[in-house]
Amino acid sequence: MSSWEPITWRGDHLRLLDQRRLPTEETDVLCRDASETATAITDMVVRGAPAIGVTAAYGLVLAAKTRAAEGGDGAALRERLQPDRRELLDSRPTAVNLRWALDRLDLILEERAADSASEAAAALESAAVALHEDDIAANRAIGRHGATVVPDEARLLTHCNAGALATAGYGTALGVVRGAVEAGKKVAVLADETRPFLQGARLTAWELMKDDIPVTVIADVAAASLMRAGEVDLVVVGADRIAANGDVANKVGTYPVAVLAREHGIPFYVAAPLSTIDPTMPDGDGIPIEERGPEEVRECFGVPVTPEGAAVRNPAFDVTPSALVKAIITDVGILEPPFTESIARAFADGD
Amino acid sequence: MSSWEPITWRGDHLRLLDQRRLPTEETDVLCRDASETATAITDMVVRGAPAIGVTAAYGLVLAAKTRAAEGGDGAALRERLQPDRRELLDSRPTAVNLRWALDRLDLILEERAADSASEAAAALESAAVALHEDDIAANRAIGRHGATVVPDEARLLTHCNAGALATAGYGTALGVVRGAVEAGKKVAVLADETRPFLQGARLTAWELMKDDIPVTVIADVAAASLMRAGEVDLVVVGADRIAANGDVANKVGTYPVAVLAREHGIPFYVAAPLSTIDPTMPDGDGIPIEERGPEEVRECFGVPVTPEGAAVRNPAFDVTPSALVKAIITDVGILEPPFTESIARAFADGD
Repeated sequence: MSSWEPITWRGDHLRLLDQRRLPTEETDVLCRDASETATAITDMVVRGAPAIGVTAAYGLVLAAKTRAAEGGDGAALRERLQPDRRELLDSRPTAVNLRWALDRLDLILEERAADSASEAAAALESAAVALHEDDIAANRAIGRHGATVVPDEARLLTHCNAGALATAGYGTALGVVRGAVEAGKKVAVLADETRPFLQGARLTAWELMKDDIPVTVIADVAAASLMRAGEVDLVVVGADRIAANGDVANKVGTYPVAVLAREHGIPFYVAAPLSTIDPTMPDGDGIPIEERGPEEVRECFGVPVTPEGAAVRNPAFDVTPSALVKAIITDVGILEPPFTESIARAFADGD
Repeated sequence: MSSWEPITWRGDHLRLLDQRRLPTEETDVLCRDASETATAITDMVVRGAPAIGVTAAYGLVLAAKTRAAEGGDGAALRERLQPDRRELLDSRPTAVNLRWALDRLDLILEERAADSASEAAAALESAAVALHEDDIAANRAIGRHGATVVPDEARLLTHCNAGALATAGYGTALGVVRGAVEAGKKVAVLADETRPFLQGARLTAWELMKDDIPVTVIADVAAASLMRAGEVDLVVVGADRIAANGDVANKVGTYPVAVLAREHGIPFYVAAPLSTIDPTMPDGDGIPIEERGPEEVRECFGVPVTPEGAAVRNPAFDVTPSALVKAIITDVGILEPPFTESIARAFADGD
């Protein structure tokens, strides 16, 4: 569907579409080692939990290819990769996919302990490419399942960017939008601009306009009155981490949208692959919420918008209690309340 | 309390703090005649309905002082002032206080028809100064009444700027904050940045920092999770128009704050002088909501934040149903539900 790619693996380097410069400039950042990859994640060249997971995986592959040249076996390589793994793991605190992707690669290294380091590195590369492809396939499955809950002529509200740019491609929340379009439905998207980083205004609008899907940008504060005026049929958002009870950590501003959706009788859906669910986290209270620096609020793309030195609070995420969630649209199907049961069942089926 | 004034009358000119340049620059605009004053209003050097009313009144006084030199009586002066009055009236199309202030001065000219033009001009000046002082006095009364509902150590959330900068001085919602401080209470303010025009980040933060009142700026989307975390004790906002049943039209983003306040059991107060209540408007459904141009959402102070030509919806106000309002803090006291009765009573007492 798209002629552009957010993440491209080139064998000896990783090409990332620089999301910080969208929508005014379409430029790339090239990562040639794990450090550059970790920095790209921290600096938000790439963002969105699944995209971060795939990016970190390629970052470890870049390190593995270099360190494999030192010889030895897979076990030695695994040992040598620990600092790289740590650096990548520390690049962003909230997204569960980061750890999940790196853990999956670690398993490969364990399996390849007796092989040569270069064989282990090659296996790692195959696994990262498979992760990338699996994520796109998972998003397409989310799109197919999600399309069934989207009425024809639906007006969907979304927050932040859970699109192709947030994933390895296709998107989760925007995967549902694309799935509905591919199912022949006419849809229109209202995109919350999503201060402070403006992922909705910059990224969601950009990628939907690229794909000729109707999108209208609003200030976050305008969603409530449009809901009250009957101009929103359903809400679909992505997730950074989902607890075992269905509580959802996602971009700050998701929780108020969920409260407002319930206030106006509008169904609120979360779209995410099963890998975003953290079965070890009983509920949302335990999910760490990253507090980012004050500049994002003090400035708007370099232009100061507060008095110098103004005190700022800048939580990057919030937690939406599962009671506000109508259903979780995953790659293995639509999970409905009670989520503790439907999530446990989905994980059991996957084993 | 403040060492700075948004509007200062100098006898032969009017000094306005240029709100377009806040918070990065503190500069003044001097108005020496009605034309310069009208231009300052049109260009939003000064904004906020009560502030606009007082400014326009001084603009007419500047014209009267010049035209009084041509001699004749008050009736002749009134005639000569018609073009100035028209120019001031046309400077902003929607501000109700603008017409109200100019009408009040017109009454003075009618009363002084038989006096000399210079005596009439002097009476006009006194009336404008009285308007200015009355507005500040009304805000101080709001502050005194409001202080009684603010607990010590309270953390107040406010939206937009209903402060000294939006009025002749002292403010309505921020009048409540100042009143609490003057009553010896320790308070801290959370200021919603208030996209798209950022009055909270730019103006509320600026004037509270000037007065050494603790203020923390947040993206509008962060209010919900801070409420959920128990970090907000009460909400106080201003109003652009209040209907006879207590429905409140105010800056877009006020309504979601009210819904979220109720969700978290946080009292939601509206602070406004009785003159903001429109007893001819039965409820909020009849209040026209201005839809402003797309540039405010497409750009952030000149920096593009959406793809070029992105579709935008930009309602400037929203309506908060009176059921979400704990009380309306006015200059004549605190009005409580049922508002249809308390508002009618307040107007009857005022007659």
